[in-house]
Amino acid sequence: MSAGWFRRRFLPGGPLPAPGPPGPRARPGPRASPVPYRRPRFLRGSGSAADASRRPDARPVRSPAQGRSLPWNAGYAEIINAEKSEFNEDQAACGKLCIRRHEFGAEEDHEWQVLCPEEFLTGHYWALFDGHGGPAAAILAANTLHSCLRRRLEAVVEGVVAAQPPMHLSSRCVCPSDPQFVEEKGIRAEDVVIGALESAFEECDEVIGRELEASGQAGGCTALVAVSLQGKLYVANAGDSRAILVRQDEVRPLSSEFTPETERRRIQQLAFTYPELLAGEFTRLEFPRRLRGDDLGQQVLFRDYHMSGWSYKRVEKSDLKYPLIHGQGRQARLLGTLAVSRGLGDHQLRVLDTDIQLKPFLLPVPQVTVLEVDQLDLQEEDVIVMATDGLWDVLSNEQVARLVRSFLLGNREDPHRFSELAKMLIHSTQGVEGGPTGLMSYDDVSVFVIPLHGQGQGHSGH
Amino acid sequence: MSAGWFRRRFLPGGPLPAPGPPGPRARPGPRASPVPYRRPRFLRGSGSAADASRRPDARPVRSPAQGRSLPWNAGYAEIINAEKSEFNEDQAACGKLCIRRHEFGAEEDHEWQVLCPEEFLTGHYWALFDGHGGPAAAILAANTLHSCLRRRLEAVVEGVVAAQPPMHLSSRCVCPSDPQFVEEKGIRAEDVVIGALESAFEECDEVIGRELEASGQAGGCTALVAVSLQGKLYVANAGDSRAILVRQDEVRPLSSEFTPETERRRIQQLAFTYPELLAGEFTRLEFPRRLRGDDLGQQVLFRDYHMSGWSYKRVEKSDLKYPLIHGQGRQARLLGTLAVSRGLGDHQLRVLDTDIQLKPFLLPVPQVTVLEVDQLDLQEEDVIVMATDGLWDVLSNEQVARLVRSFLLGNREDPHRFSELAKMLIHSTQGVEGGPTGLMSYDDVSVFVIPLHGQGQGHSGH
Repeated sequence: MSAGWFRRRFLPGGPLPAPGPPGPRARPGPRASPVPYRRPRFLRGSGSAADASRRPDARPVRSPAQGRSLPWNAGYAEIINAEKSEFNEDQAACGKLCIRRHEFGAEEDHEWQVLCPEEFLTGHYWALFDGHGGPAAAILAANTLHSCLRRRLEAVVEGVVAAQPPMHLSSRCVCPSDPQFVEEKGIRAEDVVIGALESAFEECDEVIGRELEASGQAGGCTALVAVSLQGKLYVANAGDSRAILVRQDEVRPLSSEFTPETERRRIQQLAFTYPELLAGEFTRLEFPRRLRGDDLGQQVLFRDYHMSGWSYKRVEKSDLKYPLIHGQGRQARLLGTLAVSRGLGDHQLRVLDTDIQLKPFLLPVPQVTVLEVDQLDLQEEDVIVMATDGLWDVLSNEQVARLVRSFLLGNREDPHRFSELAKMLIHSTQGVEGGPTGLMSYDDVSVFVIPLHGQGQGHSGH
Repeated sequence: MSAGWFRRRFLPGGPLPAPGPPGPRARPGPRASPVPYRRPRFLRGSGSAADASRRPDARPVRSPAQGRSLPWNAGYAEIINAEKSEFNEDQAACGKLCIRRHEFGAEEDHEWQVLCPEEFLTGHYWALFDGHGGPAAAILAANTLHSCLRRRLEAVVEGVVAAQPPMHLSSRCVCPSDPQFVEEKGIRAEDVVIGALESAFEECDEVIGRELEASGQAGGCTALVAVSLQGKLYVANAGDSRAILVRQDEVRPLSSEFTPETERRRIQQLAFTYPELLAGEFTRLEFPRRLRGDDLGQQVLFRDYHMSGWSYKRVEKSDLKYPLIHGQGRQARLLGTLAVSRGLGDHQLRVLDTDIQLKPFLLPVPQVTVLEVDQLDLQEEDVIVMATDGLWDVLSNEQVARLVRSFLLGNREDPHRFSELAKMLIHSTQGVEGGPTGLMSYDDVSVFVIPLHGQGQGHSGH
């Protein structure tokens, strides 16, 4: 499998460099032994997987993932960074996910790790992080989240590999009918993977909070992760990046965006439950626009946390405060500050000139969707497209799908076609090559194109 | 339009009576003047719409809707009560919804109401209420909810009839760009109807709370309401009844069920936010089964409010408490007591032998879905089926759709075919007439069959 990854900071008129040659492991095969995972290099020119194990020289933050020899292999995927600095707010990571099975006991630890690599449960991991307030959180997330996930999966690996997760870990069955209770609740192995993804995001968020505080830095980032494991693709999203499945006759969203607008009810409800979070400076109610003095006493359209429809209320003085969520669409802001409502970091973020914290309103928890890859009749051209919001601001799912189909059908022989496709998608947002909308993205844009063919055939099994 | 409504309490082997002849207004036309709305009579035999304006002799509760001359007309629909007492826990209501337009000022009130009926905005209303802990709440809801809705719609009727709701009621435009703000927020007339339905459910819940307290009665009920208005069908649901659209080549759910299982995260989160609601007697965590002493110290599967997946935790003593939500499927109970998580009433309901209240965990707010009836190419056999959970426990949506299609195609000439269809659906749950599943419902079952043909052609316009 190869994955094309491109990202760029928009430079008006600046041509994208051609991608470098694929690394020696651009097509993955089983690895004889795990090698340390590395973030992709951040070059201004082109890079390939051959360079991926070289540690970048400078790090803006100290990451707990650094210096550890993780059972990861980033070498199988072709990763090319186009025109981004190492300190860009968009960051990414991908690699092979090797999860130790615990049955052998800790004493065999090192030897077993070297001699019995086939006893790893292996999968693949792709992640995009879109930072704000600086690159620090995104860089930490790219360095950390995969190891949080690996640890969480290893802690519950018995539940992941079983046909049905055991009620008790280590199979200390207390009640003979325990499997029946698990079955009646409909608990499947994939629910344990989902739980591991959820807790990995939370753990990573805590790590970022500690690290940023220790280094006196700030910032936050969205996180979009795809994990291929045991014939399924898990897509975990916290923020406004997006993943879609593109096939010949199907376009399927694999994630939803989490913004102040899409999470309005949750955010308003939190302010209703803990009004002190607004410090008397904001109103939790939503109005069509910010109210003014001459609206006082009139009946205006409004929504509260428990409403999906709209009603009218008589305007009181407290309604004139700045709204908890203001603006619409891409302009919508939480507490006048943030455009996303889920993500990692932002522990220190406060509303300008106040002591009002953003963090209580932000969730690090992702929403996870599961694609049954092994149930699909996969074709060569079936891919997942993962991208930060810069792409989706300019192109709809359908437009991306049309570009994907026509590009792949026209480039059947090119061994780099998935990387080229990622580059072409980014080009389409830059007002070059006659993009389908004529719109341009002024945001960072990062794209993974992940071919699915081969995934559903036990490729990422034990 | 005619609507067939059937309900019965299961009596083993008891044959259903044949329906009576249709009332004179079984096919509705415009009414010259509004007549008081009445709940359908509760007869052991058959009734028809001709009887519907006769007030039932006995009322178990005092209803604020009684004695009022509401601009309603229940006469257009054929309503037949099969083998249920007036005090059954299932209750229903249907009628014409006449919403006064406010432009004329209050002084013209009575005269205008008589002389200018065409200035009503008219629609149709159907409602099913499935009571628990006695019929009192369901009877109150059947008597009250339609008038709450009418009042709420009249209060915002300007927003309902406009192409785009005005930001300010009474068109006192403060800012010239107000319509633009409303448009940017995507606020449509249907959002104002949804808001009216939401607030009507809340108001009705408050009325039921006051009335039950005043009369020393108890109980609660689910509520499923369909409203046909201006070419759209609004389905508002709070509880575990269900409405589906059945067409020749389509079955579309129009509601979701609200049970302790489907609302687990909301319920657990409330207990996390206000742990005092559990009075130290319950654990908010979900486990595959109730834990016991010998689970202590082991790692078991669990879920908390922020998780959609499952993980493992080490069992502590507090985890041995009774679970906030216990059991699965139809057996799932909130605080060991209730099988639904939304509905009206239950203000006094407490966990047996404790002071723990159920009400904080119950929402009266419905979820509203909108069917664009005027966008459908309607056929004679296109219907909405609304039914209480007794039907859906035994028949799937697809099974109901198959029964609907084959019955209607085989009974094209029968003027009572929609009523007969409702009766047949109930028969299918009673183990008679060779029901498709062989399953039997021991619950009350109530069914509306609403033919859609004619609805999308301005039939229920102003």
